[in-house]
Amino acid sequence: MKLASLNNGSPDGRLHIVSRDLTRATAAPGVDTLQQLLESWDALVPALVAIYEKLNAGLVIDAIAFDPAQAMAPLPRAWQWLDGSAFDSHGDLMDKVFGMTKEQTGRPLMYQGVSDRFLGPQETSFFPSEGDDIDFEGEFGIITDKVPLGISADAAIGHIRLLVQINDWSLRRLAPIEMKTGFGWIQAKPPCAMAPVAVTPDELGNNWRDGRVDLNLVVHWNGKQFGAANGYAMSCGFQDLVAHAAYSRSLVAGTVIGSGTVSNSNYREIGSSCIAERRGIEMIDEGAPKTAFMRFGDTVRMETCLPDGQALFGAIEQQVAQTP
Amino acid sequence: MKLASLNNGSPDGRLHIVSRDLTRATAAPGVDTLQQLLESWDALVPALVAIYEKLNAGLVIDAIAFDPAQAMAPLPRAWQWLDGSAFDSHGDLMDKVFGMTKEQTGRPLMYQGVSDRFLGPQETSFFPSEGDDIDFEGEFGIITDKVPLGISADAAIGHIRLLVQINDWSLRRLAPIEMKTGFGWIQAKPPCAMAPVAVTPDELGNNWRDGRVDLNLVVHWNGKQFGAANGYAMSCGFQDLVAHAAYSRSLVAGTVIGSGTVSNSNYREIGSSCIAERRGIEMIDEGAPKTAFMRFGDTVRMETCLPDGQALFGAIEQQVAQTP
Repeated sequence: MKLASLNNGSPDGRLHIVSRDLTRATAAPGVDTLQQLLESWDALVPALVAIYEKLNAGLVIDAIAFDPAQAMAPLPRAWQWLDGSAFDSHGDLMDKVFGMTKEQTGRPLMYQGVSDRFLGPQETSFFPSEGDDIDFEGEFGIITDKVPLGISADAAIGHIRLLVQINDWSLRRLAPIEMKTGFGWIQAKPPCAMAPVAVTPDELGNNWRDGRVDLNLVVHWNGKQFGAANGYAMSCGFQDLVAHAAYSRSLVAGTVIGSGTVSNSNYREIGSSCIAERRGIEMIDEGAPKTAFMRFGDTVRMETCLPDGQALFGAIEQQVAQTP
Repeated sequence: MKLASLNNGSPDGRLHIVSRDLTRATAAPGVDTLQQLLESWDALVPALVAIYEKLNAGLVIDAIAFDPAQAMAPLPRAWQWLDGSAFDSHGDLMDKVFGMTKEQTGRPLMYQGVSDRFLGPQETSFFPSEGDDIDFEGEFGIITDKVPLGISADAAIGHIRLLVQINDWSLRRLAPIEMKTGFGWIQAKPPCAMAPVAVTPDELGNNWRDGRVDLNLVVHWNGKQFGAANGYAMSCGFQDLVAHAAYSRSLVAGTVIGSGTVSNSNYREIGSSCIAERRGIEMIDEGAPKTAFMRFGDTVRMETCLPDGQALFGAIEQQVAQTP
């Protein structure tokens, strides 16, 4: 099933079921918001799945055309956003770029970020200054229902109700300054954006395996392809990230957990999901970074397709601009 | 004005106005929750202040006795909890305890923590294991209304609508492990608790100065006084913490910002607001820590009084127990 929250003037939007081919949508009956659905998933979801099948068959008479420009983030605000960093090839490069030597602990890396808003797929992102080194980060993410304290990874997989695609904006000048405090990021991590549609894991078929998304996240910067890294290279599955987070806190329904920047070790061939990673490669190969960070007016596009070419989440298509 | 959220079975509780002496309460008319009040503060607050004055004068006929055992946290869940570490005497000791050498940047320290629930003042806190080194942390905090992106510290002071007292639970075994990643804390920071009442800054009179609480936070551990540190020693005011947080994100109404563990440089005389700090002193003075962390069944009490002896926020009185 595919779900979107269309802008109706309220902070949570109006939950809609979207057809698999992303052409049609219909308001979810009996549940106004995705947050409400996640709080009562088992009770509410069967009726929605039945409508989803009718929608795909063209049998929902009053379906509307699905317009991603009207979509907010599928979950426009969340009580909790925990972002991992589960791609080793990315982490190793970042340590080089930031001049850090992170201790290898074998534990998942994770920080908590701003979650009172996730931007819609076509919303402009505003930043104070180009001098802060504006960067996009293409990620996959999951959304859970309520997860009990101390859950095992094996049990956690069943609490992964939805998959999403995220652009985790970063201000690279500030990231290492904040990281060196040990406290994580505040200024370096402005609000993220999400692709228009959240999908249940079954939409991926065999491309959802071992708690990982075995699909390429294709990133374009100013219209030119920048990367197409595969999500399967995570060093642990999303269920391990869920269990890690739930060690000393139960997870509220609607918790969003991110994979960290999608990255593969053959980044020289397939490219990167953020600029900082390319700069790290340049530092290794050429002695210094040469790719500049984003300028105001730049655009980024992120999209993930199934093997048959069908867009899975719809596209993130954002522009960056200076804070008015 | 003093405000509490009494347990009515809903996640946000029912907003009540509480008399200055904490003996009587009355439901806030026209606004059900503190979150709603914070979203429309200027429009709603004058009517509540008028009732508060009547309540203090004994003129609210149907007032109820205020029972802190019925109080949730004043803001039982928040979209954002940002905790600072603004007491240098605490930070210096922690670096010693954790074997860290934090770079001195002159910037406020801040991490984002779990905010989908703040425990009530008398709720038991459950933890997985005594072996995680359970510690309390006494803090002051502020709650803002909506704060625009890029606000100055001077303008930020006006967005500090309420002051609260917080017990920021910490698992000290995990804290340095997570800190060394640079990502901040997830497992080391379970949900905090709040004292029963949030107060407007005018309740402190001259003891609210320079964006600091010039009062002692008195901590008892298992009935024995452990510390009485004064909140004025912050290296920056709360308005500086607000401005720091709002550099690249506007702050949602109901953002809670903490001072970090209240600490004074004469900690040998006045004691500490957390166990780790005392252990740091013992490491300096005696070569090794000797005070053990908390055991299941232990209690902690935190209270702040005005110079006339009147309790300001009411007391946090919690017990720790093992996760069932």
